[in-house]
Amino acid sequence: MSSSNYYDVTTWHVGNPSEDVGKVINSIIADIKERQNASDVNDGGKPGAVIYLPPGDYRLRTQVLIDISFLRIQGSGHGFTSSSIRFNVPEDEWPDLHELWPGGSRVLVDLPVADSANPANGAAFLVERAGSPRISSVEFANFCIDGLHFTPDGSDLPAENSYVNGKTGIHVASANDSFRVNEMGFIYLEHALTIHNADALSIHNNFIAECGSCIELRGWGQASKITDNLIGAGFKGHSIYAENHGGLLVTANNVFPRGASSVHFSGVTRSSVTNNRLHSFYPGMVVLEDNSSENLVATNHFLRDHEPWTPFLGIDNGLDDLHGILSVSGSNNSVIGNHFSQIIDSASIRPEGATPVIIRLREGTGNFVSNNHIVAMNVHSSPSDDCFEAQVDALLATDDVEDLAVTAVLVDPGSARNTILDSGSDTQVIADRGTNAVRATPTP
Amino acid sequence: MSSSNYYDVTTWHVGNPSEDVGKVINSIIADIKERQNASDVNDGGKPGAVIYLPPGDYRLRTQVLIDISFLRIQGSGHGFTSSSIRFNVPEDEWPDLHELWPGGSRVLVDLPVADSANPANGAAFLVERAGSPRISSVEFANFCIDGLHFTPDGSDLPAENSYVNGKTGIHVASANDSFRVNEMGFIYLEHALTIHNADALSIHNNFIAECGSCIELRGWGQASKITDNLIGAGFKGHSIYAENHGGLLVTANNVFPRGASSVHFSGVTRSSVTNNRLHSFYPGMVVLEDNSSENLVATNHFLRDHEPWTPFLGIDNGLDDLHGILSVSGSNNSVIGNHFSQIIDSASIRPEGATPVIIRLREGTGNFVSNNHIVAMNVHSSPSDDCFEAQVDALLATDDVEDLAVTAVLVDPGSARNTILDSGSDTQVIADRGTNAVRATPTP
Amino acid sequence: MSSSNYYDVTTWHVGNPSEDVGKVINSIIADIKERQNASDVNDGGKPGAVIYLPPGDYRLRTQVLIDISFLRIQGSGHGFTSSSIRFNVPEDEWPDLHELWPGGSRVLVDLPVADSANPANGAAFLVERAGSPRISSVEFANFCIDGLHFTPDGSDLPAENSYVNGKTGIHVASANDSFRVNEMGFIYLEHALTIHNADALSIHNNFIAECGSCIELRGWGQASKITDNLIGAGFKGHSIYAENHGGLLVTANNVFPRGASSVHFSGVTRSSVTNNRLHSFYPGMVVLEDNSSENLVATNHFLRDHEPWTPFLGIDNGLDDLHGILSVSGSNNSVIGNHFSQIIDSASIRPEGATPVIIRLREGTGNFVSNNHIVAMNVHSSPSDDCFEAQVDALLATDDVEDLAVTAVLVDPGSARNTILDSGSDTQVIADRGTNAVRATPTP
Repeated sequence: MSSSNYYDVTTWHVGNPSEDVGKVINSIIADIKERQNASDVNDGGKPGAVIYLPPGDYRLRTQVLIDISFLRIQGSGHGFTSSSIRFNVPEDEWPDLHELWPGGSRVLVDLPVADSANPANGAAFLVERAGSPRISSVEFANFCIDGLHFTPDGSDLPAENSYVNGKTGIHVASANDSFRVNEMGFIYLEHALTIHNADALSIHNNFIAECGSCIELRGWGQASKITDNLIGAGFKGHSIYAENHGGLLVTANNVFPRGASSVHFSGVTRSSVTNNRLHSFYPGMVVLEDNSSENLVATNHFLRDHEPWTPFLGIDNGLDDLHGILSVSGSNNSVIGNHFSQIIDSASIRPEGATPVIIRLREGTGNFVSNNHIVAMNVHSSPSDDCFEAQVDALLATDDVEDLAVTAVLVDPGSARNTILDSGSDTQVIADRGTNAVRATPTP
Repeated sequence: MSSSNYYDVTTWHVGNPSEDVGKVINSIIADIKERQNASDVNDGGKPGAVIYLPPGDYRLRTQVLIDISFLRIQGSGHGFTSSSIRFNVPEDEWPDLHELWPGGSRVLVDLPVADSANPANGAAFLVERAGSPRISSVEFANFCIDGLHFTPDGSDLPAENSYVNGKTGIHVASANDSFRVNEMGFIYLEHALTIHNADALSIHNNFIAECGSCIELRGWGQASKITDNLIGAGFKGHSIYAENHGGLLVTANNVFPRGASSVHFSGVTRSSVTNNRLHSFYPGMVVLEDNSSENLVATNHFLRDHEPWTPFLGIDNGLDDLHGILSVSGSNNSVIGNHFSQIIDSASIRPEGATPVIIRLREGTGNFVSNNHIVAMNVHSSPSDDCFEAQVDALLATDDVEDLAVTAVLVDPGSARNTILDSGSDTQVIADRGTNAVRATPTP
Repeated sequence: MSSSNYYDVTTWHVGNPSEDVGKVINSIIADIKERQNASDVNDGGKPGAVIYLPPGDYRLRTQVLIDISFLRIQGSGHGFTSSSIRFNVPEDEWPDLHELWPGGSRVLVDLPVADSANPANGAAFLVERAGSPRISSVEFANFCIDGLHFTPDGSDLPAENSYVNGKTGIHVASANDSFRVNEMGFIYLEHALTIHNADALSIHNNFIAECGSCIELRGWGQASKITDNLIGAGFKGHSIYAENHGGLLVTANNVFPRGASSVHFSGVTRSSVTNNRLHSFYPGMVVLEDNSSENLVATNHFLRDHEPWTPFLGIDNGLDDLHGILSVSGSNNSVIGNHFSQIIDSASIRPEGATPVIIRLREGTGNFVSNNHIVAMNVHSSPSDDCFEAQVDALLATDDVEDLAVTAVLVDPGSARNTILDSGSDTQVIADRGTNAVRATPTP
């Protein structure tokens, strides 16, 4: 470990990493750049460096600015523990708890309140570089970014349940290539990971939970992957959001509540949402909007049920049950081989007395909806003060239920020339049979 | 690496890691706890630590007890090599072998024989903590746990082929959150990895083979994932077992023989077994039992053929060919788009002369079986003394075969209101057409 | 890090890693072997070692020969940046670029020109060992292998666009077990990763691009996985190639242009290509040839469109539009639930005026083609000098298009007894209805 391109924040000679790890890392980056001043000659380049954060608490009072390629920042522990559960434990019980805070290689984000008009200001790590080439191969691995506290949102909700604080974990503002975010933990940030203009990005095997929004791919981009993550946003935000991306692969993720959406695509084309496990307490779990076209949504498990944990009872994302668990505005998408479980209390359906919609085709043409299995149950949910117990109990409950009538597929007048095969019985598919091809699932 | 939260077992001042790495690690954990005695104040927590095992042989004579969150134990090498093949090489040839044992960062489990009534006793690593919060973010990464030897099981089988020795690699006894097991190797353990009451667990990219059972999720749990592993249990045990779990994602695993089952769910709901490659020498490859419901089993490749390696000829899991390659006791499951290859010698079919069953629905209602492709061949297998060669030869053999008659889908009287589409020809689907909906695959 | 089994190339006493890291690593391997001379006794083995390359430029002038098990070579950065884009920037603009070369822990392959008849000669890392057992558990992780330059190929193409240079990143010549290649970067090599006779190999989460061919599994093998990689070969080579493999799992990869094929199987059986995102500029994206049988090709997203970047305009893989996007020579394969987008300029179709073929069954029997969705558009492509912009623009373009007539499935006379369900309208499926079963997709 004696290489001059290996840095440990605890041994760097500038700053105190416990007091302000941002200042330490910025000083290290300045050192890397100074040592790279030799021009690239004879195939020799500017290889970058690795910055190591051993397990420990590192307060960040200065934003880190990354403007060099080939920088890897790594720790030894994603450090997630539920702050949400702990903040909802009565404070007089805290002394009985083994620990109060996340851990591992933990960055405590303690920036001044950000200007909400510019979320980059509130980012612990800001990646930004003008000019060519695009900044490449920045890697974040196996450490924890903790936003510490949420702040009041003006509602009756306790501040720590608001999912807002103006803080972002990592904000990439410039076009970039071949970035990696692996094995990280993100906790109690309003935005965990926001990346603009990504090419060949990999977001893999992270733990991103109890954040307002988790993954946001903004601007435009291509050929990226979001794979094998554990993800769960707050009720106001997105678990996975992408706009104007092509060739994005979203697979093998386990996305749990309570995001306003599980996967939300806007103007995304020729991309895949396959093979994920998706769970939400609200409609609008997967949204393809703004002419999102030629995407494949296949072999996902969708579960929509009810909030079982008392602190969040009554909260929702504002969508009613006609919205669709999967909502499609776009053309030539494929929706194949998905399982949908809708397990709700019929008394809670909005609009009252409505028949909930599972798949809704709103706009566009030529969508192919085939061999999806829809299970719908009416269940009387029993909320609990114990978050884990409540969720497991609800997940495992298959008794004391009765069938619930749903619309399996609803095709709006704005959408036409779709093909709907074996995705609902004849009465469960509501579509103009003149402009759409329908083959109903045979019924016993 | 000077941080006080980074420990190397080879430089710790207590114990000798070659003689008893368990004693060394327990001493390190005691040190971590002592240094954490300051209470959590001002957002500051108990960040945990990382314990590093460089490549080397580390005998473990004392069980490690982990009762702190945010502990990462990591090595530099999963170290798998086949002990099974070597133990079946005549001993007088051993001097000609390049190496005899697994390697990497290797823990040699040398505990006293465990009480079989309490498998936790035989665990190299025991994770257990009462109270709140649940123990969180313990990570195991990139080292090898080697049980060294199997022991006689009372049968005629050589001791080293018995898959029993009372040893467990990692045993998690208490409810836990956000654990990770990545890039590990597990070898010659009766139980590789047993985890009770898991929440948001990730078991990813491990090599778990030549163990009695590989992955067992016991008790109950939710929102976990078992992804991208290479797994192969012994003939008595489970490759992947889960009970009372909801929202479990089992995907992208390559599960090879000879586990008694490849994936076995008991009372598991709203979970996914998708996109795996599964290979077994026996029926009962995927079992959904005890009211396992609303699960998705999709786009998996199932191969069932014969044991080709002479040391294990005649061994099986006791199930006959009517059991089903996939057996379902539960309701509202989805079985979509799987490929099944059944490549067996018709002379070996049990009961003699029976027509083997591929998918069997035993109990429950509302299962959806759609667009599965079933290939069945009668083949004369030729076992070999060379394990790798025998397996590859069998895998690649597609000549000298003839079609084999099978029942594609059998619906027992205990199961009703199922929908079976395009998963077998009319004669290959045996189901009460009055209580089940069947659309047979068209035949040329 | 004081263990004698942990080596850092920058601190080893033999050689200069900047001048010839190959000589340094070979010296380290010799040291490991010398220290392992004690025989394996009392369960004690030859655990191997880890060799660390901190971020930096390491020229390799001597081939590394690996002939010990349990060796892990690791860096701290995959270091990809596009050399292809930079070499196509006018040289007088280079001084304005932030950096010219890939980075991270970067090995600069500077071997004498290889004998093209023996690609092993041109390998930076050669793994080869005779005898038993097979060499096991060699791991490559998180460093960059850069071939630096391509060489003239005799065509009019600039040398740096030729994708040939006789260099290979890693070449495994001997039968092997439980190898891992994780988080690596491969750039500007004629062959990135060539592995013979693999058992239980894992190639996971790598970045392999701008190489002639990326992943080649040669000889024969079994039970391996290629998962979660970003891959893109040159127009002459393979992105993923395998021959005589059984039980191979190819999943969750994002394979981008411009490989002559995306996935090419020759004599591969009982394997899976599922859940990948595949993008190519030519036909022949997925090829199952030479009796590749009982494979599952499911829930992949196929996009074939046009080269949008001016330096490669006019280049193709020599296949015409009748070849098929997916071409099958083999039996009993399953092609289920895939999305195909064919977005081409009808004026470019070859043979002129032909109707392009999407899925072509050439030879074999018993293939099952079910529930694939085929989208075909005629588009006027607008190439650009800006590689990233051109690709994103093309990917996102769904306006100014019109439907294009295609043959969804073409069954050659050499293929029979296939089943084709819901994968094209009646006129889009060209097959002998006497010897194949066809159910056309209903049309609106």
